Amino acid sequence: MTLALTLDNASVLIFALTGALAASRAQLDVVGFIFFAALTAVGGGTLRDLLLDRDPVFWIADATPLAIATGAAVLVFFTAHLVESRLKWLIWLDAAALAIAVAAGVSVARSMEVGTGVVLVMGVATGTFGGLMRDVVANEVPLVLKQGELYVTAAVAGAGAALIASLLADGTIWTTVACIATTFGLRAGSLLFGWRLPVYKPRPPRA
Amino acid sequence: MTLALTLDNASVLIFALTGALAASRAQLDVVGFIFFAALTAVGGGTLRDLLLDRDPVFWIADATPLAIATGAAVLVFFTAHLVESRLKWLIWLDAAALAIAVAAGVSVARSMEVGTGVVLVMGVATGTFGGLMRDVVANEVPLVLKQGELYVTAAVAGAGAALIASLLADGTIWTTVACIATTFGLRAGSLLFGWRLPVYKPRPPRA
Amino acid sequence: MTLALTLDNASVLIFALTGALAASRAQLDVVGFIFFAALTAVGGGTLRDLLLDRDPVFWIADATPLAIATGAAVLVFFTAHLVESRLKWLIWLDAAALAIAVAAGVSVARSMEVGTGVVLVMGVATGTFGGLMRDVVANEVPLVLKQGELYVTAAVAGAGAALIASLLADGTIWTTVACIATTFGLRAGSLLFGWRLPVYKPRPPRA
Repeated sequence: MTLALTLDNASVLIFALTGALAASRAQLDVVGFIFFAALTAVGGGTLRDLLLDRDPVFWIADATPLAIATGAAVLVFFTAHLVESRLKWLIWLDAAALAIAVAAGVSVARSMEVGTGVVLVMGVATGTFGGLMRDVVANEVPLVLKQGELYVTAAVAGAGAALIASLLADGTIWTTVACIATTFGLRAGSLLFGWRLPVYKPRPPRA
Repeated sequence: MTLALTLDNASVLIFALTGALAASRAQLDVVGFIFFAALTAVGGGTLRDLLLDRDPVFWIADATPLAIATGAAVLVFFTAHLVESRLKWLIWLDAAALAIAVAAGVSVARSMEVGTGVVLVMGVATGTFGGLMRDVVANEVPLVLKQGELYVTAAVAGAGAALIASLLADGTIWTTVACIATTFGLRAGSLLFGWRLPVYKPRPPRA
Repeated sequence: MTLALTLDNASVLIFALTGALAASRAQLDVVGFIFFAALTAVGGGTLRDLLLDRDPVFWIADATPLAIATGAAVLVFFTAHLVESRLKWLIWLDAAALAIAVAAGVSVARSMEVGTGVVLVMGVATGTFGGLMRDVVANEVPLVLKQGELYVTAAVAGAGAALIASLLADGTIWTTVACIATTFGLRAGSLLFGWRLPVYKPRPPRA
C-alpha cells in the first residue's frame, strides 16, 4: 500500500468516527450513522480527486474506504453511549483526521504536476471539506467558523511544513511527519492552551 | 430512450416539482422557482456523473432535463396555491423522486465497471443529493436528518433490492421495479405508519 | 490574456473581497479571511470547469487566482474597519462580481460545443455558486433566497442578453458588455429602486 493510500485510509477511519458522532448527536438510525460517516470520510478526498481529475476517484478504484466508514459507523452506533462527552471526542478525532488528511492531500498533489500553491490548496481542501460537509448537512456551525480557534490556519501551516520538509528531505517520510505534527500540534495547542492568531475586530471608522 | 435516461428524466420531473415547492415556501419569483427546480432535479445525477467521470454530464449531453425542470417550475408557480398542503406534496413527491433516482443511479453505475459497493453508493447519492442541496440552499432542515424517519435507509434498501434482483433476473425491468418498490414502500411506510429502525439514544455511561 | 481569463480574474478579485468581508463578519483570523476569499472567488468557476470537464480547472492551470484571492483577503483584513457598512460593501461588490462571473461562464461555455440552454446554465452557475458557497459555509441566508430581490433573475437575464448579443455581433466585446450591463443593471435597480418580479404568494385554495 502506498503512503498516499495509507494516509487516505487512516483519515477515512477517523473522519468516519467523527461523522458517526455527529449522527449520534442528531439521533439517527444506524444507516444514518453510515451515511454521515461515509460523507465525512470521503468528502475531502473526493473533492481533491475531482479537482485533480484523478480517474477513478479513490474510493471508486477500491471500495476499502467505504467498508472502513461502514465499520466505524456501526461501532460508534453501539458504543457512543459509553463515552462521557461525544462532542469532545468528535472535536479531538476531527483534529487527528484533519492532520492526516492534509498530509494525504499534499502527498497526492505532489505526485501530480501541479504548482506549489495548488499543492497547498489540495492539502487544505482534503483536510477541511469532509468535516465541512458533515457540519453543513448536520446543521451545525462549521468548525472552520469557530472564532479564534486555529483550524484552517493549522491546515495551512501543516501543508506549508510539508512543502518546506520536502525541500530538505524529499521522498522521505519526514514530509508527512512534519505535516501531521504541525497541523495537529497547532490545533491541539489551540484547543488546550487557546493559541490563536489575532482575529478581526470591527472598530469604528477613523474620524 | 434507454431505461437509465427514462429514469433520469422521470426523477428530474418529480424532483423539479419538489424544488419549486421549496421555492414557493421561500416566496421567490418565477426565476427562483426555476433555479431551485433545476438544482434539485439535476443535483444528484450530476454528482453521480462527476464521480463516475461520465463525460458529458447527462444534462449537458442533452438539455431535455433543463427544459423539464423549467416547465415544472412554471407549472408550480401558477398552481401551487391550489393545493392544500404544499409541504405534504413536497414530502410525498420527494419520496417518489427518491425512489426513481435511486434506480437511475443504480442503473447507470451498473453499466460501468465498478464494484457492488460503489453501485450501492451511486444509487444512494443520486437519490439523496438533489434533495439535500435543495434543503441546504433553502435553509431548511435536510430530510436526511429527520429523526426516526426512513430516508437514507429506504434508499440503501432500494439499492440493495436492485442488486439482489439483478442476481435473479439480470437485464430485465425487474431490477428497476424492485428498487423503486422497495425505496418508495419503506419511505411511505415510514411516513404513514411510523416504520423506523431503532435510533441512537444517548444513555448515561455505565457505572 | 484571453477575454475569458480576464473575466475570471476580475470576478475572482471582487468575489474574494466579498468572501473576506463575510469572514470579517464572522470575526475570523487572517487565514480564515483567505479561506473564505478563495472559496468564494473560485467556487463558481470551479463548478463550471468540473461540469464541462475542462482539464485542468482554471486555478490549477495557473495559480494567479489563488494569489489574487490571498492578496484581496489580506487587504480586507487590515482595512475593513475603515468602511462604514461592511454588509453594504459586501452586497454591492457581490453584484459586480456576479455580473462579471456570469459573463465569464457564458464566455467559457460558448467556446465549447454545448447547446444554448447549457451556455445559459453555465453563466448562471458560474455567477451564483461562489457566493452561494460563501453564504452556506458562513451560516448566512444565501442571497439567492432574498425574497423579492432580483438575483438569479439578473444572472439569467444577463446570460440571455449575452446570447442575443452574440447573434447580432458575434466574436466582439459587445457580448460581454451586454451581459455585464444587464446583470449589474437589474441587480442594482433591484437594490436601489426595488425592481422585482412578482413573487409567489400563497393564497387560500379556491372554494
